Formats: sequence, structure tokens, C-alpha cells
Amino acid sequence: MKTLLIIGIGAGHPEHITVQAARALARVDVFFLMDKGEHKGKLNALRREILERHATPGSYRLVEVLQPQRPLGSDYRASVDTLNAHKQAVFERLLDDEVADGECAGVLVWGDPSLYDSTLRIVEAIAADGGRALRYEVFPGVTSIQALTAAHRITLNSIAGAVQITTGRRLAAGMPDGVDTVVVMLDAHDGFKALIGQDLDIYWGAYVGTADEVLLSGRLDDLAEVIAQARQDARRRHGWIMDSYLLRRRT
Amino acid sequence: MKTLLIIGIGAGHPEHITVQAARALARVDVFFLMDKGEHKGKLNALRREILERHATPGSYRLVEVLQPQRPLGSDYRASVDTLNAHKQAVFERLLDDEVADGECAGVLVWGDPSLYDSTLRIVEAIAADGGRALRYEVFPGVTSIQALTAAHRITLNSIAGAVQITTGRRLAAGMPDGVDTVVVMLDAHDGFKALIGQDLDIYWGAYVGTADEVLLSGRLDDLAEVIAQARQDARRRHGWIMDSYLLRRRT
Ligand SMILES: C[S@@+](CC[C@H](N)C(=O)[O-])C[C@H]1O[C@@H](n2cnc3c(N)ncnc32)[C@H](O)[C@@H]1O
Ligand SMILES: C[S@@+](CC[C@H](N)C(=O)[O-])C[C@H]1O[C@@H](n2cnc3c(N)ncnc32)[C@H](O)[C@@H]1O
Repeated sequence: MKTLLIIGIGAGHPEHITVQAARALARVDVFFLMDKGEHKGKLNALRREILERHATPGSYRLVEVLQPQRPLGSDYRASVDTLNAHKQAVFERLLDDEVADGECAGVLVWGDPSLYDSTLRIVEAIAADGGRALRYEVFPGVTSIQALTAAHRITLNSIAGAVQITTGRRLAAGMPDGVDTVVVMLDAHDGFKALIGQDLDIYWGAYVGTADEVLLSGRLDDLAEVIAQARQDARRRHGWIMDSYLLRRRT
Repeated sequence: MKTLLIIGIGAGHPEHITVQAARALARVDVFFLMDKGEHKGKLNALRREILERHATPGSYRLVEVLQPQRPLGSDYRASVDTLNAHKQAVFERLLDDEVADGECAGVLVWGDPSLYDSTLRIVEAIAADGGRALRYEVFPGVTSIQALTAAHRITLNSIAGAVQITTGRRLAAGMPDGVDTVVVMLDAHDGFKALIGQDLDIYWGAYVGTADEVLLSGRLDDLAEVIAQARQDARRRHGWIMDSYLLRRRT
């Protein structure tokens, strides 16, 4: 039997890890560090910092793997499926080759493992396959949504209101019915511009919780261009961007 | 100048508090423990456990206040406004009478302060009023949503999908358009029954993260009565219930 711990570490601030997750690190014999090539540096720096602070030095091994990239293609859903099949193969190889029977492996997941992250789905598929004696546990983490609202010191919902969490890609369809708050993640293309003129406030944050944090908030109509420019500047300076925002109907 | 720390502590598991929040406790001279009469016992027990584990013994004072209750009335929004005005008055009195100039006060908020909690709104109103020299800081916490998905080891969103967070009250309007996942909180009346026959899975949890945790999951049509019964039993046994659930369209 092998054990795998899927550990949420928070979305940028090294102290946003929970006490439970920090203690879980001590159980791990081998950590898999999965990385996207692009912003490898920064994201892995946080993971390493977390290990240095909370794991027991000398008690674990590190295996770094370059994460497969999403094949370019017009069908987003299909390319994600292909990507996840590649990721699953990588995970299976790691479990087979790098973890001895009776050992405990760990994966550090950005933010919370439930939110726009494929690790849980991949591990569930491996466990369901039945070919391996594998137990796995999930440790929740503070999401980038909580980091964003805390940084702006705002609530997520309006009083008794509903909230939609969505992607930049989906925002093109407009402000959803029945909610007065939308949180947008994974927006590659200034999706908020589609909602100018709809009397919304925006609370935007990039690299929230890190030393590079940038926050902007106000009327969307006044800020759309400012934020588009800030995103462009940040991309130029850092080589990549990690940002999200909350849109709320003004009352 | 007085300082107020609004500290998310997680939604039931004492180790779901973040390292940052645990450290913030050490800065606090006086904690306000705001309580609803009904389930005072359990919720406060967790708050006290957290203080005992993470705050420095002998270095802080505790002020317990019975939280004003929502006046019964048909207009939910208006009664919440009245309740919040009462809560604000209580907070102002606490800040004026229980915190000396230069001191730091702290409030422990269940889960994350952004989610269906009035503390942030109240403190913002007090700060905006300008009559007091008050600084305040917000510390994010793991929400009951993260605790629920981690306990069930499921993702919050489907691949590239949107998620709606809503209340039992709003669910009566049916499954919202454009999302395949809904998380329901604050449901007093088995709101999921309104969605029977719509080919949904349900992931339900009560007292998640605590010793009393109960989890049930499967097809909503098969489980609706079972969960309604489990809620009734739990209410009878504990005197109150704290539960939430995720509904997802089956694929
Ligand atoms: C693949 S998702 C992973 C989300 C993560 N599991 C979580 O719980 O926040 C990555 C997206 O999360 C958001 N994000 C993550 N960390 C962030 C941060 N520190 N500041 C702003 N947005 C962040 C961005 O929208 C980014 O495109
Ligand atoms: C007033 S809201 C506060 C939410 C909290 N701020 C958070 O971040 O989770 C209370 C609702 O949260 C949900 N909840 C809180 N703790 C829970 C737990 N341990 N298990 C299940 N549901 C919980 C229930 O739906 C409950 O009605």
C-alpha cells in the first residue's frame, strides 16, 4: 500500500497554509513538484519556501517533473482531456518508480485542491483504475478567492446574495442572471471589458499574497483600461501573470 | 488608535486555521466572542480550543457577548439590516469600553470572513463613520465549502465549468442556468427537494471537520429523503445543525 497526500498550500502567501497541512508535510517521504515550464520559478519558489519552513529537513526526497503542456487546439475541453491523460501517465510513473511500498508521497497544490486544479481528478482516476494499492487524502487550503477578498477587505457575497465563480472564457456570455457577484479566474484576455457599461464595481488583484501583489478597485467603467494596462505591464515585468477579480453590481 | 483583527479560523476542524491566523492571535489583547444563543456551546468550544492551542496563555482577555438575534419578520433583507445595526452598536460599545488606546482587539470568524458573515460589513461601517481611530486587518480562512469538498475528496468545479454559491432560500428558483455545480449554504428547509428529478448528484456534509461529521453522497433522487431524515435526526441529537451541500449535473 502507498499513500498520497494532496495538500492545499494557499495561493501565494507562505503563511496561508493551514496548521493541518503544515503537519501533513511531516508525514511525506517524497514530494512530487509538478511544474508548468512558464512560471516555474515563482510558483516553485513558494513551494520550496513552504517545505523549508514546515517540513523536517533531511526527512524527505524531492522529485521535480516538468508538467505536460496543454496541446494547442480549438476544442478546449478535448485538449484538457488529452493533457490530463498525459498528467495521469506522469503521476503513475512517479507512484510506481519513486515511491516504495508503505511510503507516503505528497503533492503541494496551489490554493485549494478543489478549485480549477486537475490533481484530484487524476488521482481519483488512478485509484479507480484499481491496478495500484493506493490510499489518498485531501487537505483543504485557502483559495486565491479568499486571498483576494481578504486583501481588499471585502465580502464575497452581498447580503443573502448568490455568487458565481467562473473563467475568463465564460465571461464573454455576460453577467450571469440571478447573481450580483462574479469571481473570475483564469482570464487570459481582459474578459472584464465585455461588461463595461453594466454598472459594476471591480476588485482586481495580481500575485495576491506575494511580495509582488498589485490591487486595484473601483468602478469597472473607470478602471477597465487601467487594469488592462496593469496586466500588460505586469506580464512584461514578470514574464507571466497570475490574477483574478471580483465583479459586483453597484447598488 | 485601536486595531481590530478579523481572523478566519476555518469551519470546524481546529487545525484548519492558517499559520498566519494562528500567529495573528498572539497580537491580540482582547478577543470578542460573539455568540448566537442557540448553538453557543459547540461553536464557542472550537473558538476556545483554538485560543488554547495557539494564543499565549495569560496574554489576552476574553469578552463574551450574546449576539443580537434577527428579528422575526417577513422581509428577510430588512430584518438582516436591523440585526446588523444592532450588531454594530454592540461592536462599537466593545471597542469603546473594552479596548484601550493602542491595544489590539480580535474577532474569530467561522470559516472565512468573506462568506455569509456580517463582521466585515459591520467593521467597515464603523471605520467609515470616522468617529473612531480604528485600523483593521483581515485574515482569510478555509471556508466550509473547502472543508466539504476536501471531506468528499471532490473538485468544486467541473472541467472549465462555473460554480454558483447560493442559499437554501434562493434554491427554490431551481438549478441556475449556465452552471453545472451549485453549493448551497444556510438551508433551513431541505431546499434540495425542489431539484429532485433533474439528474443531479449531491454531496452533503454536516458538522464537517468536527468529531460529529456526517457525509452522504450519491444521486439526489435516491438520497433526498435519506438526507432529510439525517438532518432531522442530527437536529434532534445536537439541538441544531450546521450543514451544506454541493449539487452537480450528472454527465
Ligand atoms: C489553475 S487556477 C488554480 C486555483 C487555485 N487552486 C486556488 O485555489 O486559487 C489558477 C488561477 O487562480 C488565480 N490565482 C491563483 N493564485 C492567485 C494569486 N496569488 N493572485 C491572484 N490570482 C490567483 C488566477 O486566476 C489563476 O489564473
Ligand atoms: C453564516 S454561514 C458562515 C460561513 C462561514 N463564514 C464559512 O466560511 O464557511 C453558516 C453556514 O455555513 C455552512 N457551514 C459552516 N460550517 C460548516 C460545517 N462545519 N459543515 C457544514 N456546513 C457548514 C452551513 O451551510 C451554515 O449554514
